[in-house]
Amino acid sequence: MKIHGIHHQSLRFDPDSGFLHILDQTRLPFRVEWLELRSLIDIGNAISTMQVRGAPAIGAVAAYGVVMAVKEQKDLHQAAAQLKATRPTAVNLAWAVDRMLSHLSGIHLDHQYHHACLEAARIADEDVAACSAIGDYGLGVIERVIRDKDIHNRTFHILTHCNAGWLATVDWGTALAPIYKAWESGLNIHVWVDETRPRNQGALLTAFELREQGIPHTLICDNTGGHLMQHGKVDLCLVGSDRTTANGDVCNKIGTYLKALAAHDNHVPFYVALPVSTIDWTIASGSAIPIEERDPDEVLFVNGLDAEGNPGSLLVTLPDTAAMNPAFDVTPARLVSGLITEKGVFPTTQEGMRRLHEEVRNG
Amino acid sequence: MKIHGIHHQSLRFDPDSGFLHILDQTRLPFRVEWLELRSLIDIGNAISTMQVRGAPAIGAVAAYGVVMAVKEQKDLHQAAAQLKATRPTAVNLAWAVDRMLSHLSGIHLDHQYHHACLEAARIADEDVAACSAIGDYGLGVIERVIRDKDIHNRTFHILTHCNAGWLATVDWGTALAPIYKAWESGLNIHVWVDETRPRNQGALLTAFELREQGIPHTLICDNTGGHLMQHGKVDLCLVGSDRTTANGDVCNKIGTYLKALAAHDNHVPFYVALPVSTIDWTIASGSAIPIEERDPDEVLFVNGLDAEGNPGSLLVTLPDTAAMNPAFDVTPARLVSGLITEKGVFPTTQEGMRRLHEEVRNG
Repeated sequence: MKIHGIHHQSLRFDPDSGFLHILDQTRLPFRVEWLELRSLIDIGNAISTMQVRGAPAIGAVAAYGVVMAVKEQKDLHQAAAQLKATRPTAVNLAWAVDRMLSHLSGIHLDHQYHHACLEAARIADEDVAACSAIGDYGLGVIERVIRDKDIHNRTFHILTHCNAGWLATVDWGTALAPIYKAWESGLNIHVWVDETRPRNQGALLTAFELREQGIPHTLICDNTGGHLMQHGKVDLCLVGSDRTTANGDVCNKIGTYLKALAAHDNHVPFYVALPVSTIDWTIASGSAIPIEERDPDEVLFVNGLDAEGNPGSLLVTLPDTAAMNPAFDVTPARLVSGLITEKGVFPTTQEGMRRLHEEVRNG
Repeated sequence: MKIHGIHHQSLRFDPDSGFLHILDQTRLPFRVEWLELRSLIDIGNAISTMQVRGAPAIGAVAAYGVVMAVKEQKDLHQAAAQLKATRPTAVNLAWAVDRMLSHLSGIHLDHQYHHACLEAARIADEDVAACSAIGDYGLGVIERVIRDKDIHNRTFHILTHCNAGWLATVDWGTALAPIYKAWESGLNIHVWVDETRPRNQGALLTAFELREQGIPHTLICDNTGGHLMQHGKVDLCLVGSDRTTANGDVCNKIGTYLKALAAHDNHVPFYVALPVSTIDWTIASGSAIPIEERDPDEVLFVNGLDAEGNPGSLLVTLPDTAAMNPAFDVTPARLVSGLITEKGVFPTTQEGMRRLHEEVRNG
C-alpha cells in the first residue's frame, strides 16, 4: 500500500547484497525508516523488539531468517529454534520456518541459498495474494451487512483493534484489506481505530495506514468501543489474528475479547480476517495457546511526540509501580461471526471449521 | 486517607478566609499540591478542568460553590445553573447544589453565609460517613465471596476501573472503601488497577492511593481485565458510579461496561459502590443519561514523567488525527451483581431497586 502516495511492501529483499529491508515499525508513524537486516541475529532482534510485528509479516521475515542462516552456513535446526523463540504466540513464525526447512531438506548445500531465496520470496508473494483475496471476500461481508441492515444512505462504520493492516503483512493486510477494497470500490466507510494499549499500534500504525490511503477514521480509546456499539455507531468489527485454533477460538491482541463481548451483546457482526497459515490445527481450543507476557515497561511508559515534534517517552504512573503485560487474549469461537480467509468466509461452527480444514488440506 | 503517612481529606474549608482547599488531581501523583479556591469562578473551573473529579467529591465542592455564591452576593439560581453546567453526567453535582439552595431558601440574607457553611460541611461529613458505611458493607461482600468460593489459602484479587477512591469523595472512597476496610481487617488482598484511558485515573490516582495505604496492586491496561477473568485471576470487580438510574443501570467511566461484560461471561461478581446521592430516581434507565463528550486532546495527548522526572505531555499519534472522547458509558443493570450503598447491599433487580428506593425515602 501507499506511503506519501508511493506503493511499498513492508519488506524488500535485495538479492545482490543478501540483505532484507523492513520498515521499522517501532519508529512509525513519526519516522519512516527502513532497516537493513544483514544476519540471522538481525532478523531475530527485529522480531523480538517488534520492529516487525503482525503474524503474517513475522512469518515472511522469519523465512528470510532461514535465508540468512543458510548464507551464514548455520545449523538450520538450531537457527529455526532460535527464530521460533523470538515470539511465542504467532503461529506463522513456526509455520514459515518449518516450511523453509522442509523445502531445503534434500537440496544440496551448494544450491540451498538460491532455493531459500526463492522459497522466502514465494512465502511473501503468497501472503500478498492471500491478503488480497481476504480483502475481496471481506468486501463481500461488508456488502452483505450493508444489504442486510439496509445501510445505504449513511456512512458504514467499522471498528478495528490493533494493526492488522499492510504493515502487519507483506501488503494489503488482513483486517484492513477489506477496508482498502471497500474504499477502492467507492463505499462510504469510516473506521473507528482502537488505540490498542499498551503499544498503541492503532494510534501509531493503523491511523497512519488509513491516513496514507485517505480513508476517514477516528481514534478512540480501547474503553470506548462498547459504548459506540450500544449506540448503533458500529456496523461491523474487523480484527486480525495471531493464532486461531481448530475450533475457531481466536488469539489476537489483548482487548480483542472485550470488543467481541460487546459486539455479541449489541448484535454487531464480529469478523476475524486471517490467512489460513495463522490457523493452528494441532490445537483443539484457545486455552492451550501460550500467551506471551511482555515487558511491564510497555505498560508503564508511553511513546509519542513532544511539543517540538521530537519522539519521546513518558512514565505514566509513579516510579516502581508494578505492572503486568500479557500481549494477547483469546476470543471464544462462540463470539466470532466468521473467519475471512483467502479460501472464503467460514463460520466458527464445528461444521464451518471442518469445511475450512478440508479446503486447506485440498490446497 | 493517608499521603506520606498523614491523614487527609480531599477538601478542606477554611472558615476564616472563606477559601476552599482541594488537592489538585490534575497534578497527582507526581506533585501533591493544594489549590486555594477563592470564588465561585474558581470552583467552577476546578470542576470543569477536573482538578476535582469523582461524583461525591464534585458534589461536596459544588456545595462550597454555593457558599462562594452567597459570599459574593450572587443570584443563587444563576450560580446554581452555572455550577450544574460544569459537568453534565455526575448527578451529585445537581443534588448538592439543589440541597444547598433548598436549605437556604427562607433564611434571611444576613444569616445565609453562616448557614451555607454549615450545610456544605454537613454534606462533606455525610459523604465521609456514607463512604465509611459503604466500606463496611463492601467488606461484607468481599467476605461472602471469600466464603462462597472458599478462597482462604490464597490472595483475593479485586479489579477496579478508574478512581473511585478517597480522592473521588471526601474520604474513604466508594469502590476503594471496601478495599481499605478489607486491608485494615487483615485480609490478604491484591488490586488490579485499570489504567483507565484517556485520563489514566487508574495509573495516576488509584495506584497512588493504594501505594500510600501500602496495599498490593498491579497496573494493567484497560484491555487486560477480560483475559485475567478468563484465567480466574479476578475474584471480584468493584467500581464506582457517576449516576445510577431507577432501574439499576450504572453510568460510570468509559470502559466499565466492557469489564461488566467480561465479569458476566466469566461468573465474576461485579459490584458497584456508591452513595445513594448518586442515584437519579427521576430517570427510568441508563439510555436517558446525558454522556459528556470531552476534548479529543485527552485521547491524543498523554501525561507523565520524562526521564528527568519532570511532568510532560506527548502526542500519541500523528498531528491532526481525529479522535472521539465520550467520558462515560452505561452498564445495564442485568450485568451488575449488586449496589453497595451506605444503606446496605441491594441487587439491581426490580425488587432490589424498590427496596433501596424505600430505604432512601425513609431517610
